[in-house]
Amino acid sequence: MIKIAVDAMGSDQAPAVEVEGAVQAAAQYGISIVLVGQEDRVHEILRSHDTSGLPIEVVHASEVITMEESAATAARRKKDSSVRVAARLMRDSGVFGIVSAGNTGAVMATVKMVLGTLPVVDRPALSTVLPTQKGKPAILLDVGANVDCKPHHLEQFAIMGDVYSRAIFGIRRPRVGLLSIGEEDSKGNELTKEAFKSLKRAPINFIGNVEGRDIFKGDVDVIVCDGFTGNVALKLSEGLIETFTAMLGQELQKTLSAKVGYIFAQKAFREFKRRLDYSEYGGAPLLGLKGITIVCHGRSNANAIKNAIRVANEFCKHNVNRVIETEFTKLGISRTAGVT
Amino acid sequence: MIKIAVDAMGSDQAPAVEVEGAVQAAAQYGISIVLVGQEDRVHEILRSHDTSGLPIEVVHASEVITMEESAATAARRKKDSSVRVAARLMRDSGVFGIVSAGNTGAVMATVKMVLGTLPVVDRPALSTVLPTQKGKPAILLDVGANVDCKPHHLEQFAIMGDVYSRAIFGIRRPRVGLLSIGEEDSKGNELTKEAFKSLKRAPINFIGNVEGRDIFKGDVDVIVCDGFTGNVALKLSEGLIETFTAMLGQELQKTLSAKVGYIFAQKAFREFKRRLDYSEYGGAPLLGLKGITIVCHGRSNANAIKNAIRVANEFCKHNVNRVIETEFTKLGISRTAGVT
Repeated sequence: MIKIAVDAMGSDQAPAVEVEGAVQAAAQYGISIVLVGQEDRVHEILRSHDTSGLPIEVVHASEVITMEESAATAARRKKDSSVRVAARLMRDSGVFGIVSAGNTGAVMATVKMVLGTLPVVDRPALSTVLPTQKGKPAILLDVGANVDCKPHHLEQFAIMGDVYSRAIFGIRRPRVGLLSIGEEDSKGNELTKEAFKSLKRAPINFIGNVEGRDIFKGDVDVIVCDGFTGNVALKLSEGLIETFTAMLGQELQKTLSAKVGYIFAQKAFREFKRRLDYSEYGGAPLLGLKGITIVCHGRSNANAIKNAIRVANEFCKHNVNRVIETEFTKLGISRTAGVT
Repeated sequence: MIKIAVDAMGSDQAPAVEVEGAVQAAAQYGISIVLVGQEDRVHEILRSHDTSGLPIEVVHASEVITMEESAATAARRKKDSSVRVAARLMRDSGVFGIVSAGNTGAVMATVKMVLGTLPVVDRPALSTVLPTQKGKPAILLDVGANVDCKPHHLEQFAIMGDVYSRAIFGIRRPRVGLLSIGEEDSKGNELTKEAFKSLKRAPINFIGNVEGRDIFKGDVDVIVCDGFTGNVALKLSEGLIETFTAMLGQELQKTLSAKVGYIFAQKAFREFKRRLDYSEYGGAPLLGLKGITIVCHGRSNANAIKNAIRVANEFCKHNVNRVIETEFTKLGISRTAGVT
């Protein structure tokens, strides 16, 4: 049976939302869960839930990594952090994947230190799922694990994103696009122009450059970019959604008829917000690490944690890491050999 | 009297929207306008408007640059394009600024060829204005003129953005932010980390790194980035606004009560869309060229053209180019000397 470790100490509201999300995932999907964190605090929250018969265990970890800490230092020095203990369980004790809403950099550095990256992969990438107009989600990567990239990194991201899309969303031949500033092959910066050539040769359904405006349209399944651009894009989208909602709210409070309209349209607004809600999509997988690792937003609620556990479970079931290794091997890509 | 040349052949609906926008600007603001383009077509549209007593003249240009053409080639070869003729009028015949909704790259290349850049500026930057939650617009630059930048280019963009914000929006001490992926000084890619140091020394109100989510909040007046990131950010924002509107429309059609709500809330929606409408903000100034140049979206309507003419007029009135030169000179920045 697949067992997922949940870092109980990561989010802004830890361990309450982690415990609640874990209880929901265990009850709803029957997933076995190990909650890792300060056991007194975890047990205290657990007692407020009905957990009878649920496959949940608790493993103690004395230290907590905060959002402000330097990733590298926290990973190296905090030998008993909840993330480090979870990573060790994944390495040694039959845990298949971990979920954390903590410091993304520290989670990545810790898992990289304890388990390493897949032998074929140069750089793990942080991926995220975005809603689109056509309903099907789109995968964007890298969204922050690698701020300065070389062209062959983007090629590796593309292949990992392709595997992710096929395994988790069941898309047979994902359309992979390169985020750039014009559709023509020749448009872009030095990095994307070089990457374009490698992607054209890669055994994926590469549809060429896509622009920022295409991300949400639903005509591309995997969008590849360097981690700086991806992180800006992701945070801008989050910010714009908040702004849009706030501005709409202001407008709708201005007149009586707008207020009446708002009451009638309320359910539609809720449904709309739900579609844009990252928490429905189950966090951001860190692709390319040995061991499935799903990162959630620090502001996650229990629903986000539950969905991330579900996604971690699917990653394990579909053996995404094995498939990534196989794909890379087929291509003759190996870390030592490099590409491009 | 300030005279503005309008490239009548640039937009998707040229010359109809250009002529209409010019007529509106002349009538509403009393700005003198030279419409440059194929005179038969321009006069034909002009006849459908009441232009009696308005300060509008027409100058013929036989060639048109399309959106698909290579910017450099079009600028070099089309010696009688509407943009080229407009640029020549600006160089030789008392025209203070030009407005074009045509191929942005070609407009920039043409003006650069005919008039050149300000002696102090290394690279002209394309800037744009974005609405914010607090009502005050924010300036984002570069949004596409320079895809690969060096740190000292970002410093120059910051200074030009600062002048723009003070001159046109009357902000006394604009808050200038560097678009990055974390607020801490140490966050960013190689480019922004270096640029951060120069910006800290620059005589502007540099508030440090800002993230994508901050752009629309209204807590920063000028946001600086390389042209690749800026262009992705701009197009993503446009795409997300379209997606948001489409999704909301879908939700609001789903049930009868939502439809009723929609009717009541209709006016609020319109007002909301207006706030997000780029056409209200009057196009994207190309900063750093000799001669005021305002670029508009290819999909501009007459209102967008009218507002761009208004902004071009304000740039002239406030002598923005002179102020940029003075600021650069004060700093001892010159193109030959370079900075950093």
